[in-house]
Amino acid sequence: MAEKKFVEEITSMEEDFAKWYTDICKKAELIEYTSIKGCMVLRPYGYAIWENIQKILDTRFKELGHENVCMPMFISESLLQKEKDHVKGFAPEVAWITHGGGEKLEERLCVRPTSETLFCEHYANTVHSYRDLPKLYNQWVSVVRWEKTTRPFLRTREFWWQEGHTIHATAEEAMEETRRMLDVYADFCENSLAIPVIKGRKTESDKFAGAEATYAIEALMHDGKALQAGTSHYFGDGFARAFDITYTSKDNQKVYPFQTSWGVSTRLIGGIIMTHGDNNGLVLPPAVAPVQVVIIPVAQHKAGVLEKCRELVKQLSAFRVKLDDSDNSAGWKFAEYEMKGVPVRIELGPRDIENNNCVMVTRHNGKKEVVSLENIEKTLELKLKEVRDGLYEKARENREKRTYVCRSMEEITACLAQMGDGFVKAMWCGREECEDKVKEVTGVSSRCIPDSQEHFDDRCVCCGRKAEYMLYWGKAY
Amino acid sequence: MAEKKFVEEITSMEEDFAKWYTDICKKAELIEYTSIKGCMVLRPYGYAIWENIQKILDTRFKELGHENVCMPMFISESLLQKEKDHVKGFAPEVAWITHGGGEKLEERLCVRPTSETLFCEHYANTVHSYRDLPKLYNQWVSVVRWEKTTRPFLRTREFWWQEGHTIHATAEEAMEETRRMLDVYADFCENSLAIPVIKGRKTESDKFAGAEATYAIEALMHDGKALQAGTSHYFGDGFARAFDITYTSKDNQKVYPFQTSWGVSTRLIGGIIMTHGDNNGLVLPPAVAPVQVVIIPVAQHKAGVLEKCRELVKQLSAFRVKLDDSDNSAGWKFAEYEMKGVPVRIELGPRDIENNNCVMVTRHNGKKEVVSLENIEKTLELKLKEVRDGLYEKARENREKRTYVCRSMEEITACLAQMGDGFVKAMWCGREECEDKVKEVTGVSSRCIPDSQEHFDDRCVCCGRKAEYMLYWGKAY
Repeated sequence: MAEKKFVEEITSMEEDFAKWYTDICKKAELIEYTSIKGCMVLRPYGYAIWENIQKILDTRFKELGHENVCMPMFISESLLQKEKDHVKGFAPEVAWITHGGGEKLEERLCVRPTSETLFCEHYANTVHSYRDLPKLYNQWVSVVRWEKTTRPFLRTREFWWQEGHTIHATAEEAMEETRRMLDVYADFCENSLAIPVIKGRKTESDKFAGAEATYAIEALMHDGKALQAGTSHYFGDGFARAFDITYTSKDNQKVYPFQTSWGVSTRLIGGIIMTHGDNNGLVLPPAVAPVQVVIIPVAQHKAGVLEKCRELVKQLSAFRVKLDDSDNSAGWKFAEYEMKGVPVRIELGPRDIENNNCVMVTRHNGKKEVVSLENIEKTLELKLKEVRDGLYEKARENREKRTYVCRSMEEITACLAQMGDGFVKAMWCGREECEDKVKEVTGVSSRCIPDSQEHFDDRCVCCGRKAEYMLYWGKAY
Repeated sequence: MAEKKFVEEITSMEEDFAKWYTDICKKAELIEYTSIKGCMVLRPYGYAIWENIQKILDTRFKELGHENVCMPMFISESLLQKEKDHVKGFAPEVAWITHGGGEKLEERLCVRPTSETLFCEHYANTVHSYRDLPKLYNQWVSVVRWEKTTRPFLRTREFWWQEGHTIHATAEEAMEETRRMLDVYADFCENSLAIPVIKGRKTESDKFAGAEATYAIEALMHDGKALQAGTSHYFGDGFARAFDITYTSKDNQKVYPFQTSWGVSTRLIGGIIMTHGDNNGLVLPPAVAPVQVVIIPVAQHKAGVLEKCRELVKQLSAFRVKLDDSDNSAGWKFAEYEMKGVPVRIELGPRDIENNNCVMVTRHNGKKEVVSLENIEKTLELKLKEVRDGLYEKARENREKRTYVCRSMEEITACLAQMGDGFVKAMWCGREECEDKVKEVTGVSSRCIPDSQEHFDDRCVCCGRKAEYMLYWGKAY
């Protein structure tokens, strides 16, 4: 029973969620470890998911007028230090180059942990007049942060991402951009990845280093922990002042422009695993699945079976389709593509062919149907939509089930103990002191001040003072 | 005369070729310098050319069965040292990370100068059986080599490239792959970039560090200097032995597999500039031009002109088309898109519209034609082919004119003095001693042993011994 063994090798999520997670990363061949801690190899299957994410987002960014660029990977120590909050946030976790070409460098260089300072240097060189604005830039690169605890996709020392960087004539325009890109991320997560997200603003203590405001989308994983899936920052003119970026306005004044930055990373792949995966392995949303439908011949040695399968591949060329005509057993193949999270499996054998049918199995719910080969393209198209909707609904239900309205710290503690980890909705006075105390006492930290505010209590869950906001709290990846 | 000024700002290539080159890099907005020597910003227009190069090659690689992956950017010192020729070649020019997260690292890490060692580590972890072979991998990343003298695109400390890495069961398969990918590069350069290339093998002294054989394509630039435009390496089983990569063959033997690697880089953009550019700026081959055709309205304030231009944009949606309806003068626009090397310019004014015509100007030869708007898509399609052919022919003629057959070292020296730099074809005995001496005496170094061997002399151009090969020699970028 080879196929049995294939599946047995992964730990069940109920037994050990963290182990289940890394088992999937390895067994679905998304990544491989290297001899350097926190640095992973993105294998073909994992990289193909990232390529699909890139394609969808890149198209969307360009539709909105953004242009791709590429900044260097190095930042000199003096450049990093120009904006004081920014350096305070990032300097402790950078990797430093001290030698190049056999010689000690005059000044240390770090590998970019993020590229605000590089974009600022470039703006200072190229932005002079209101005619030069806005600049809407993006880059697809990897960045390095020297994390102590690392996990594939979720927290690695090097990770791949896109970072958008824009510069505008007015604060309003920059703020609009900040919110627009958060919406793009939310829309992408919900529609393409089938991951429901909460849109909101980070508290002061949780902002990006150097930002005036940070907005984020927050998702709830299967185990009840929160994942920050994307962020969008509004910088005001703080970076412009620190880097002396000015432009001449229409009325001939030297003024400071306003900036934003926004990013999503390979972390999204971790989010996909922990939102949709199950004990048989990965479950992929169709929009980013490297293989959307796998065709498995049944009794493939029988006359006509492989021919019909190949015909079907051609017929389904609008999809990412794969025919597995290897000599592995059908059962082995079933288990393999389940592990790899292929959304739809088509089984095709002599009897199906006779009846002009095939068997269609959807990965996320195991549902098996006999469908006609007539109009199979249309059937599959609808099926993939159904899969996305099914995944989304399942994830949304999990999130609803695990979202708790709490009116006191005792209630938070009791709720989490009884129901397990999840999102806690609780009122907050807006003071960092209370934010810290809630975390200290209950273990959940503030996730965001959601756009959709509710008002179920007038008082702060911690101090009892007048509440300013309803906050989402949770344990975070 | 604003348009006049725009053009005057670049140095003529006859006056100072190197200055002409960097002027184009800056004025065509391909790159911007940064405060770190040898690290450049790829600006939107420069990056868009690279994206087009990527799209064409990536599609081709995938058609041939290659899969994209991504290795980490760091290599530990001990990993780099595993293959002795490789480390000897690269260690002197790497950048070293010594600190991360505020602490001194136990072992230094370098930023990849190339990734053979990382792929080898990964192969050792994942290749076990003949069923695992071949692996046909590629990655699109940047690499770092601490060059002393740097120039945009041609030699930068960080540069963007693709590196293909493959591993095969047999030497024959690996050698086939090595040659196949050289052919892919040659075909891409000639057909997509309109750059004629010589295919050949590097001499022993000029091989990639760790390779058994290095193949290259060599192009001749406008100034008569040679540019190595792409390389493909055959490693035999040398890396496999150094990294202890083995697989179990069909007959159950532990054996070493065979490897290749191959790459082209942003250097190709330097090659485009120096092959096709002129004193009005950049000249781009249509296949990679970010804008293939620019539409310039004439008397755009007149009724119907802009409407007709917009209609034309829609009609030409199969191309990368741009309408410039800014309030700059037509003359300014002409100069700007000449500088940016847009292959075709369409001028459209009231009289043209009346006659259902437009004026079509090709950048590379300045030819101006009145063409009918009837069937303009077809006309443009043919025109872009014509542009590619025209560029190629011009470059080929320059190369022919500057390729000299020489039978003695004196002849080489005289030829170069009289005709200027170029390719020298001369017979060679195969000994490094003579290779070195030719370089020392005449200033040209061996470029490659071309696939198409000629035999115009029996004796080595240097020592007079029996000649083994005809070699291409030249001064190289």
